[in-house]
Amino acid sequence: MTESVGKVTEQIFKLPSDLLLECGKTLKNIELTYETYGELNSDASNAILICHALSGNHHAAGYYKDENERLGWWDALIGPSKAIDTNKFFVVCPNNIGGCHGSTGPSSVDPETQRYYGPDFPVITVKDWVNSQAQLADHLNIKCWHAAIGGSLGGMQALEWCRLFPDRISKAAVIAAAPKLSAQNIAFNEVARQAIITDPDFQEGKYLDSEKSPKTGLRLARMVGHITYLSDEAMRDKFGRELKEGKLNFGFDVEFEVESYLRHQGDVFSESFDANTYLLMTKLLDYYDPAENYKGDLVKAFETIKAKIMVISFSSDWRFSPERSKEIVNALLAAEKDTTYLEIESSHGHDSFLFAEDRYVSALTAFLGN
Amino acid sequence: MTESVGKVTEQIFKLPSDLLLECGKTLKNIELTYETYGELNSDASNAILICHALSGNHHAAGYYKDENERLGWWDALIGPSKAIDTNKFFVVCPNNIGGCHGSTGPSSVDPETQRYYGPDFPVITVKDWVNSQAQLADHLNIKCWHAAIGGSLGGMQALEWCRLFPDRISKAAVIAAAPKLSAQNIAFNEVARQAIITDPDFQEGKYLDSEKSPKTGLRLARMVGHITYLSDEAMRDKFGRELKEGKLNFGFDVEFEVESYLRHQGDVFSESFDANTYLLMTKLLDYYDPAENYKGDLVKAFETIKAKIMVISFSSDWRFSPERSKEIVNALLAAEKDTTYLEIESSHGHDSFLFAEDRYVSALTAFLGN
Repeated sequence: MTESVGKVTEQIFKLPSDLLLECGKTLKNIELTYETYGELNSDASNAILICHALSGNHHAAGYYKDENERLGWWDALIGPSKAIDTNKFFVVCPNNIGGCHGSTGPSSVDPETQRYYGPDFPVITVKDWVNSQAQLADHLNIKCWHAAIGGSLGGMQALEWCRLFPDRISKAAVIAAAPKLSAQNIAFNEVARQAIITDPDFQEGKYLDSEKSPKTGLRLARMVGHITYLSDEAMRDKFGRELKEGKLNFGFDVEFEVESYLRHQGDVFSESFDANTYLLMTKLLDYYDPAENYKGDLVKAFETIKAKIMVISFSSDWRFSPERSKEIVNALLAAEKDTTYLEIESSHGHDSFLFAEDRYVSALTAFLGN
Repeated sequence: MTESVGKVTEQIFKLPSDLLLECGKTLKNIELTYETYGELNSDASNAILICHALSGNHHAAGYYKDENERLGWWDALIGPSKAIDTNKFFVVCPNNIGGCHGSTGPSSVDPETQRYYGPDFPVITVKDWVNSQAQLADHLNIKCWHAAIGGSLGGMQALEWCRLFPDRISKAAVIAAAPKLSAQNIAFNEVARQAIITDPDFQEGKYLDSEKSPKTGLRLARMVGHITYLSDEAMRDKFGRELKEGKLNFGFDVEFEVESYLRHQGDVFSESFDANTYLLMTKLLDYYDPAENYKGDLVKAFETIKAKIMVISFSSDWRFSPERSKEIVNALLAAEKDTTYLEIESSHGHDSFLFAEDRYVSALTAFLGN
């Protein structure tokens, strides 16, 4: 086990400005919860933004109380002498708007009404997130990120930073991402949403004032999601067709190890995540399409980009397959942007971006430079 | 549109013997609902058994009242001068035990107790199905099937016929199948089951005596299933990212065409299928593993086979990919069985087996012979 950044503390930033969202609504009194690791250098040229994915949060590295605690979700990659080296870089990771881990979201109380936002929280977009992150950068006196890095939905944010603020970002690592969701991706998200929305305890999203919340639906949503995060191969290696009790029981209790694993993942998630946030995050994924205002022309959508971009995909990722990454790469190259592409052999499926595979670490280290 | 077999009538067969099931229980008073198309020849040598898949039934071809009605599920392949030619063959298709379209299943009334079986219906297996189909063959005076044919779970039945009754089957077409489910396959089934079981209206399976049934859970189960039946490519071709109203509405109503399609599929299915049957069918799929009693050795499991077997897979099928079909083929070849394999280029995913693609039709026609 390599060294971690150690004990970390979450910080809260109140956005000085209201945020005009892409949906047309204005969000006021926004708070972003975030963490930082490492030190910002004197000319603020070593700052790296970490963008989290669907169910992620600001706790990307280290621990809160003691080292036996669960580490941050990207601790394998962020820390002293790790791929994202906190001896060199000042690393910033915010929980995004709409989240449920401290930043303003559906489970926050609207200071104006003193009620939970709940289902009235506006539908937000990747662009809205990047705009809020820009205010955080201002607050931290970061004029230009050395890099923005993210996997999956995080990769989309990194890419959007390059498009929206070409002068405020030098490099971006777009990992296990796609230029937009496929119909199949949207279909999986829709099943997750329907699981939540049709749970009687959802109560049209107003469950926070009630004693019940749509845990059953959220649990199902996570189970479906989890299948798409793992590869068939990873599941085979991890569970095969192993029977929990060694024999078939001809009933509907847990029989195969994979069932037990999925139920556990669903249970844990449904206890710790907010259903309205899950709805928002899946919708935000569905909506992401940088080429939308360019009649589908991704090359045109990338024209403003100045950053050097590294695109990384994983061989066994079927949620956002290497082919989807290549769509980004091909459009970047056609737009004559400084682009590097790497496909990593990995059996972990979409989740591969979370693991510190050697080639992946080397590539990120070299790309980030000094 | 090619000619159909025309108007068909369902028939009911009461099994003369009780059925000792693999789970150890005995099922009594079993009825099988079935249809036949074409004429049995004098020496009963032209009979073909059609085995249905997860949510299929006995209505494989033709129509009940008039030709504007929805045709049988495999009407594209079964009929005069079609791949399974009813001018030549006597085609038999039963609804399997545990089904909900006429044959004895959870929604049947147990003649002994005068109550619905419901959740007390025993967990059945592919072997149990084949044993019940053998009694139907006896009843129809069919000593030896010219062929058994099935797609998906239907293919598993055809394969099991070859193993269990080597002297009662000459040929088998095992289409879009797998020798056993992968952990990912089981995981998708488990999500479907959990959707049903955790629906409050499931009432531990005793919903038939109640006014409510777990339609919400069954709808979700079908939505998940449906994604796995279609390929990413088929979904892209069919729906792309088309918006139902041409623009984003920043809400949770239907936005993308694919959402509308999935919800519709789920709605229709939840009105016409029985939830307990769905649970049984997915469990039966999970359990299928002919090599189970041979320490995982599929070659040994195939040793008894005498039939000529054609294995067919489809390029875009990711539920049971061509690789899974090749596992069957390789084991058959290693066991020195008469084996043919064909991979068909098709964009319809797992559902490809339902469509009359030219090469597929030609291959089946040639394989079945005269």
